[in-house]
Amino acid sequence: MSEPVIDPKLDDLAVNAIKFLSVDAIEKARSGHPGMPMGAADYSYTLWAKHLRYNPKDTAWPNRDRFVLSAGHGSMLLYSLLHLAGFDISLDDIKEFRQWNSKTPGHPEREPQHGIETTTGPLGQGISNAVGMAMAQTRLAALFNKPGYDVVDNHIFVIASDGDLQEGISHESCGLAGHLGLGSLIVIYDDNHISIEGNTDLAYSDNVAMRFEAYGWHVQSIDGHDRGAADKALSIAKEVKDKPSIIIARTHIANGAPTKQDTASSHGEPLGEKEILGAKELAGWPSQPDFYVPQEVYDLFAKRAEQLLSDYKAWQDMFAKYRQHYPEQADLWDKMMSKCVPENIEDAIMPSIDLEKPVATRAASGAVMQEIAKLVPSLWGGSADLAPSTKTDIKNAGSFGKNNRLGWNLHFGIREHGMMSAVNGIGLYGGFIPYGSTFLIFSDYARPAIRLAGLMNLQAIHVYTHDSFFVGEDGPTHEPIEHLASLRAIPNVKVIRPADAAETIVAWAVALENRTGPSILALTRQNLPPCNDDPAKAKGLRKGGYVVRDADRIDAVIIATGSEVSAAIGAADLLAAKGIKVRVVSMPCTELFDEQDAAYRDSIIPPDVKKRLVVEAAVPLGWCKYAGDDGLIIGMNRFGASAPANVLAEKFGFTPEAIAAKVEKYLG
Amino acid sequence: MSEPVIDPKLDDLAVNAIKFLSVDAIEKARSGHPGMPMGAADYSYTLWAKHLRYNPKDTAWPNRDRFVLSAGHGSMLLYSLLHLAGFDISLDDIKEFRQWNSKTPGHPEREPQHGIETTTGPLGQGISNAVGMAMAQTRLAALFNKPGYDVVDNHIFVIASDGDLQEGISHESCGLAGHLGLGSLIVIYDDNHISIEGNTDLAYSDNVAMRFEAYGWHVQSIDGHDRGAADKALSIAKEVKDKPSIIIARTHIANGAPTKQDTASSHGEPLGEKEILGAKELAGWPSQPDFYVPQEVYDLFAKRAEQLLSDYKAWQDMFAKYRQHYPEQADLWDKMMSKCVPENIEDAIMPSIDLEKPVATRAASGAVMQEIAKLVPSLWGGSADLAPSTKTDIKNAGSFGKNNRLGWNLHFGIREHGMMSAVNGIGLYGGFIPYGSTFLIFSDYARPAIRLAGLMNLQAIHVYTHDSFFVGEDGPTHEPIEHLASLRAIPNVKVIRPADAAETIVAWAVALENRTGPSILALTRQNLPPCNDDPAKAKGLRKGGYVVRDADRIDAVIIATGSEVSAAIGAADLLAAKGIKVRVVSMPCTELFDEQDAAYRDSIIPPDVKKRLVVEAAVPLGWCKYAGDDGLIIGMNRFGASAPANVLAEKFGFTPEAIAAKVEKYLG
Repeated sequence: MSEPVIDPKLDDLAVNAIKFLSVDAIEKARSGHPGMPMGAADYSYTLWAKHLRYNPKDTAWPNRDRFVLSAGHGSMLLYSLLHLAGFDISLDDIKEFRQWNSKTPGHPEREPQHGIETTTGPLGQGISNAVGMAMAQTRLAALFNKPGYDVVDNHIFVIASDGDLQEGISHESCGLAGHLGLGSLIVIYDDNHISIEGNTDLAYSDNVAMRFEAYGWHVQSIDGHDRGAADKALSIAKEVKDKPSIIIARTHIANGAPTKQDTASSHGEPLGEKEILGAKELAGWPSQPDFYVPQEVYDLFAKRAEQLLSDYKAWQDMFAKYRQHYPEQADLWDKMMSKCVPENIEDAIMPSIDLEKPVATRAASGAVMQEIAKLVPSLWGGSADLAPSTKTDIKNAGSFGKNNRLGWNLHFGIREHGMMSAVNGIGLYGGFIPYGSTFLIFSDYARPAIRLAGLMNLQAIHVYTHDSFFVGEDGPTHEPIEHLASLRAIPNVKVIRPADAAETIVAWAVALENRTGPSILALTRQNLPPCNDDPAKAKGLRKGGYVVRDADRIDAVIIATGSEVSAAIGAADLLAAKGIKVRVVSMPCTELFDEQDAAYRDSIIPPDVKKRLVVEAAVPLGWCKYAGDDGLIIGMNRFGASAPANVLAEKFGFTPEAIAAKVEKYLG
Repeated sequence: MSEPVIDPKLDDLAVNAIKFLSVDAIEKARSGHPGMPMGAADYSYTLWAKHLRYNPKDTAWPNRDRFVLSAGHGSMLLYSLLHLAGFDISLDDIKEFRQWNSKTPGHPEREPQHGIETTTGPLGQGISNAVGMAMAQTRLAALFNKPGYDVVDNHIFVIASDGDLQEGISHESCGLAGHLGLGSLIVIYDDNHISIEGNTDLAYSDNVAMRFEAYGWHVQSIDGHDRGAADKALSIAKEVKDKPSIIIARTHIANGAPTKQDTASSHGEPLGEKEILGAKELAGWPSQPDFYVPQEVYDLFAKRAEQLLSDYKAWQDMFAKYRQHYPEQADLWDKMMSKCVPENIEDAIMPSIDLEKPVATRAASGAVMQEIAKLVPSLWGGSADLAPSTKTDIKNAGSFGKNNRLGWNLHFGIREHGMMSAVNGIGLYGGFIPYGSTFLIFSDYARPAIRLAGLMNLQAIHVYTHDSFFVGEDGPTHEPIEHLASLRAIPNVKVIRPADAAETIVAWAVALENRTGPSILALTRQNLPPCNDDPAKAKGLRKGGYVVRDADRIDAVIIATGSEVSAAIGAADLLAAKGIKVRVVSMPCTELFDEQDAAYRDSIIPPDVKKRLVVEAAVPLGWCKYAGDDGLIIGMNRFGASAPANVLAEKFGFTPEAIAAKVEKYLG
């Protein structure tokens, strides 16, 4: 790699250009966070001008370094750097900071084409995404690097704030990163001693260096305004291959502001005209025009871009040779980078799965995953210490760890939030369709990461088992009641609750094909019989809802999901014996059903049939939409309880008998 | 305090009684976690027999020590100890372990009368509750102790597992505990090296001692089966007054099981008959009867109870004298212990608040809190580094910290989850009506703690501001969309979204009076005009929904919440000018509205008016119930965006003009 040579005086110009672009944009928007970009400009410039490898003309280059601004409120720092480095962020875009439909929203929103690798702002997420990125990088390097061919040798750089490090998720992800020895991960901690309420010592006195040593990280401490020190620390960190690195950079928030440096007020409000003029004067910067960038600074970054371009071309040449020498590996590379999934994958899987005997959908899912693992090389994931229960281990595929970079199964530890944010990071890195698994109840712990996957249009598969009070003896702390509704509430999240093994296969197919958001599989602990005489009918899941049991006359429609579908069918049988004819609809995914046209929806739930029941062992919230004004919802208006599952089913009224009795009463 | 003297041979009997009671109960239930009770029996017995202060006959004794089994899956350990110690858990109750309606559910469920201080099972919660308990203990001690009167000098003891310490919430709460120097908190870390997937070294290699040193804790390491070492370490920890203590106890899971000791299989499954017989044989324990407790063990605990009773009586005598010498303090004590709130507190507050000028409900809330602070001594809380935005600081009341134990305002740091779990702990301890505050979007980070407050019937007030896309420039990462619906989905949680300053006062009154669950106040960033000509009408909030603008003929009903109420009134004005007569209903709390009788509900939303609109700047999930089949919901079916709030209101259709246009079109 060629080493950049930079004129120290030019460095000052470039750092000031970053600071004042940021400050001017925030001032124009009358909104934003100027303190962080000013405080972080020195080391950030050093990172971008001397270390970070990128190609603004090919932002999808797989071996680019990843840059994650975990302290997302400092978004203008990122936009300023992207602008100077030649990415598709113009000066006009910067002038549109925080305006409708601009490329420069208040917090960075994932846009790979613009060099924005992930959406940040909710603290602790960026650094945890980065841990996932480093996991992905490490596995890809192990899969593809060959002697003389370092196809994957990039780094993941993060800027994190005290907020990121106070958030619990940082404990989970950073503990995991240390455990896994992720050498490609380099975090700069912007230690500016200021948070919104005042000095960080109001609430925070962790010894950060000691904490990260306890995690097994490589730790350095520097003056964050000493660009030479930052350069040296970054060089050292890059050489540490067996541990993640943290560089604790003591900075001064709003560095260079005459009266607001080191103040909480500089964190989240524009500096104001007077303060900006003072800062520009102190820096010897022209007071006008605003958004001023000296040509020398553009030239400096252009020169750096040239050096980087030659690195980029060298990588492309190397990869062309790699393709010749290792055609099978290159083929696998292409398949993984495109996240290739065979069409109608359920057809390939169905013959391998026993679809006749009653089975828990978690167990069916485990069997399905063994088949997918053979067909989809991008699939990768694990569990938060519940694999024996969630059935997500891929057999004979080993465990990913310090000593086995090719191992498949990820052991995230008891760290649901860190897991799902790392899963997002694996997906963001590229090459993988990631999954994570735990009990549905613990999706609450991971909720901010689920939301961000939705917001980022990011594929991620969440395998959540033990999906209702049928958990039984473990009791209400382990029995999800409100989780189906609350996950359905998040935009762009597909919640899928299959009713039997065949539906579980199709649910997985849908999740594999859903490239633009997270998919949530809600699976049972308990066994369920097959719902359809012909398993192929389960493909109806692709439309969200379909008829599993029809009648020649429809006195009522019962809409059910998951484990309640077979109970509803049982109820239909009991009712049929009494001359009451009921259609049963399996509705594994309301999001998909809502996407169908009215003709389809009306063919499943006929508008003229007003007697409709919904049966779901969960809060009724959201079901009136389908039940209608005359409908009845059999749900849970309370927390669960600790008792054997069959006892709970009786007490809570979810047996076929109880459902049939309610239908009968309701039909009068 | 009298020192217990115990015969070492008796100790063995008692430890084995704990182990085999636990194991037998799990075997009978065919479900449970035997490994932890067996592994933890030695030091737990030491704690309960030699250190813990309690009175099973007065479980509400304010100065009792608190015992928190954060590793809630080890519930049988707790039940065994409670039984032996004379609490209201009989042998028959233990035989009913994990059965319907028993006193011994799968995971401990808060039941102060039985000595169960908090609900645990979701990992990391118990230890974080305990941090809140220690905060409450510390403030009460500072408020009430006088020379010679140690009214509050108890301890908070916790048993935590590796799962508790892996969870991110433990980082938040333990970092805060170290920062605050909570000397009354003593954690025993059950370091058994086993988690569900196998040895903890699969996923976990934190240096726990170093980590807790980094937090400023007092750290000791012992052999967890050496009862003498445990005794000594507990004695030392009790003497450390300026730091929380952690005792790292290396244990062997399922200690004493012949083949399952140190195995993952002993974690979550009954040992099986053969293994139990083997363990009993090894211990020299009779194989029959099951649930055997030697009389000597009962006697031992009875003797301990006698000693503790004399301590208890001494405290009562002391407090009687305290009451004579410090009648004002004793009066305050009584008020705090009963969490006294003046009746109709809104009447006392209204005159002090400016109800005429437009104001953000967060600012109104801040003003209201200043008044409540004068009237409700139990009120106590703070913010997760957002007090300047959430307006929750009590003025001139100081900050709680190492050097100011009387300070009011709590600085939780950027630790939303730790905050809300500590808030639960403050509430559980007694004496306080606690509150925590952050942005509504970050309620996702705290969700498991919110749920547990609901499950525990525990009062806690959540002040969540910036409650919609009206946040504006900060963009979609900071704009709640699904949060109102997803919080309403949790059983026993009151979500209250007031529409103006007057409603905000009543919302606070409701929250203060809601003793049996958490109340969530969703408050605006932006200014809102008053909705009622007479502020007293805002008392309609107590019924969940009420009419804020009526018409002599009702062409349609608009139901709105929070900031959308004034927009709906604006729309009603525009429509009135066109001859369309609309009733506007403010519906700040659907939970309260649903509790009213049908007559009231029908008087607000007349059943014969089928033209109904709901306006809420959030996902529509759940509103069909009120809108009905012919209704229209004006909500958000997407994430927010970064732009000035007024621009977003136009783009998303939440201006009075846009609402009026939609109503007009809808009415045809």
